Amino acid sequence: MTYERANIRDMAGYTWGEQPAQQQVIKLNTNENPYPATASVANALQGLRVDELRRYPQPFANAFRDVAAATHGVSRDNIMATNGGDELLRLAITTFVDAGQTLGMAEPSYSLYPVLAAVQGCRVSRVNLEEDWSLPLDFAAQLNAVDARLAFVVNPHAPTGQLMPVSRLRDIAAEFKGVLVIDEAYVDFIDPACEYDAIPLIREFDNVMFLRTMSKGYSLAGLRFAYGIASASLLAPMLYKTRDSYNTDALSQHLATAALAARDEAAVNWQKVRDERARLSQALSGMGFSVLPSESNFVLATVPGEPAVSQTGRDRLALALYQGLKEDGILIRYFDQPRLRDKLRITVGTAQENTLLLQSLKSRLERVQQDV
Amino acid sequence: MTYERANIRDMAGYTWGEQPAQQQVIKLNTNENPYPATASVANALQGLRVDELRRYPQPFANAFRDVAAATHGVSRDNIMATNGGDELLRLAITTFVDAGQTLGMAEPSYSLYPVLAAVQGCRVSRVNLEEDWSLPLDFAAQLNAVDARLAFVVNPHAPTGQLMPVSRLRDIAAEFKGVLVIDEAYVDFIDPACEYDAIPLIREFDNVMFLRTMSKGYSLAGLRFAYGIASASLLAPMLYKTRDSYNTDALSQHLATAALAARDEAAVNWQKVRDERARLSQALSGMGFSVLPSESNFVLATVPGEPAVSQTGRDRLALALYQGLKEDGILIRYFDQPRLRDKLRITVGTAQENTLLLQSLKSRLERVQQDV
Repeated sequence: MTYERANIRDMAGYTWGEQPAQQQVIKLNTNENPYPATASVANALQGLRVDELRRYPQPFANAFRDVAAATHGVSRDNIMATNGGDELLRLAITTFVDAGQTLGMAEPSYSLYPVLAAVQGCRVSRVNLEEDWSLPLDFAAQLNAVDARLAFVVNPHAPTGQLMPVSRLRDIAAEFKGVLVIDEAYVDFIDPACEYDAIPLIREFDNVMFLRTMSKGYSLAGLRFAYGIASASLLAPMLYKTRDSYNTDALSQHLATAALAARDEAAVNWQKVRDERARLSQALSGMGFSVLPSESNFVLATVPGEPAVSQTGRDRLALALYQGLKEDGILIRYFDQPRLRDKLRITVGTAQENTLLLQSLKSRLERVQQDV
Repeated sequence: MTYERANIRDMAGYTWGEQPAQQQVIKLNTNENPYPATASVANALQGLRVDELRRYPQPFANAFRDVAAATHGVSRDNIMATNGGDELLRLAITTFVDAGQTLGMAEPSYSLYPVLAAVQGCRVSRVNLEEDWSLPLDFAAQLNAVDARLAFVVNPHAPTGQLMPVSRLRDIAAEFKGVLVIDEAYVDFIDPACEYDAIPLIREFDNVMFLRTMSKGYSLAGLRFAYGIASASLLAPMLYKTRDSYNTDALSQHLATAALAARDEAAVNWQKVRDERARLSQALSGMGFSVLPSESNFVLATVPGEPAVSQTGRDRLALALYQGLKEDGILIRYFDQPRLRDKLRITVGTAQENTLLLQSLKSRLERVQQDV
């Protein structure tokens, strides 16, 4: 006999990116930062004592919230700490979308969103991205038409890495009648020359929430620490009602606070990632790949193919390259879904990792092309 | 404008136990272990490096699961790690109870249960404990009558500390038609002479789930690490579908694994707590309190009162003692709810803390009784 709710029984769970046990593998598949966390975080870790774990943690992670508020020029009430970004996404659904109601998202986008929607038993309205991977101009109108209570937008977008300007986000926030969650997981890798800062939108709109994470920019994916930024009224039901009462632990609070306070140290790594992103993109282009301009720590590259090569042929080539790299001990991401089957998503690694990736890719490409 | 779901808007959130910032306070209000975590955990903490946090954690905490499986004589599939016990309780509701359906609990019991039910939008059926604080014999029948999909039972019970025998749990599991979650948060403090071990029930019943936590017995409340033990079929939808995809972090996994592997070290502290529990109970009885026999790390004590003293008078005395102790820098727990208003729940502290508590309580009691 099974006991789970019908919607749980009928749904499929999330598919995790591969996390090999061997350390030898070059891991460019889950968008982790290639550099370890900064010296400030290492020092904070050294300073921890087990007796500090005897008591319950500060339930709101207030020390972290104060550092985050100062970082973004907002107040403590505008910040909410969560056990990884997943928790914030889940809580947004739990808090704002009844079972049977609709949430909106772009297609393609983060594959976790529909899983979280299925758990809550709510509908998903998928708005296809344009040919150039931008959000359609009527994104908000389409979602209002189906009375979506919540929409997820990733900026920079995953898996393309494309950045939407703040003005576009403002237009969506103004038009959309539900809660707009802007997932900025990759925001730290944006070129500062873009002068991108969307956070002030929370003063204009009480329906906008940003997701930031310590996983990518701060090299702390193992820590599970993220935070939301929004108007106090939007965060309040999540802070005081729907989240687990002690959702972040004392160690994570301590290290995340140290990491965010030492933002400038982490920024050195962000520049290294940008430099390598440029080199990687250029080298891939030189090999015939078509690479989308990325403001993230990954690139999405379409496999080479003369106009004469069929779509199926290109899809097959992408899958063969993904598998070939895996045999070489290099993991990247292949998405078996519409519009992505002829593409590879490659996390920007260290200079050495990227060089090995390019070598392997080149040799695999030559081998596959000889076979064809 | 507010955006939250109607049931979220209408519900009240959880009330946290007081967590004072000052370290000087003697804190006997939230059932934390009075002793720090063991040397093995301290060593594990020393051995941690920030580079281990760069990557996502093992999504299932498999190293921990293997130690837990060996500890309890079950297999890995019978264990699920969670971000504190709260997460397991929430997931049980998310997974097994639809909005509008019913969950059952004893009254009084852990005040978080109805909060979690309100978030899901499900009903709560409360079964009053008997005069002697035991579960009524028709507990399962009452819950079956309202078609409860899930029931929470705490053993040893909170806030009384009373232990239910395994045979009683077996009867409930056999009769109850929904999922029975047995919250064993305080199980480590049971006198070994009781020979209590209910875990084998998971082999007899596919609807029974146990909750264990590292917070109390292992002095790691700040770590947020707990685990469920159940048949593989009952855990599967929670493991693969409803939990957040990386619900426990790498640091917590590492320290919790070290703590559970060194169970014998922690057991030394459990015996100390039992010894102090006996001393505290005896001293309280000597002062005229009526103390329930406890197999937990707290005691529930009814204030002294001649038969002539009215119920209201006793309630007032309990509240005055709670407040008086607070002025003396000693926090205990007072529950402003039916059947508990004339009682104090006191966490067993270190010998020194308990002595100070007893001194303060004695002097406050004398003062209040003179005033009356």
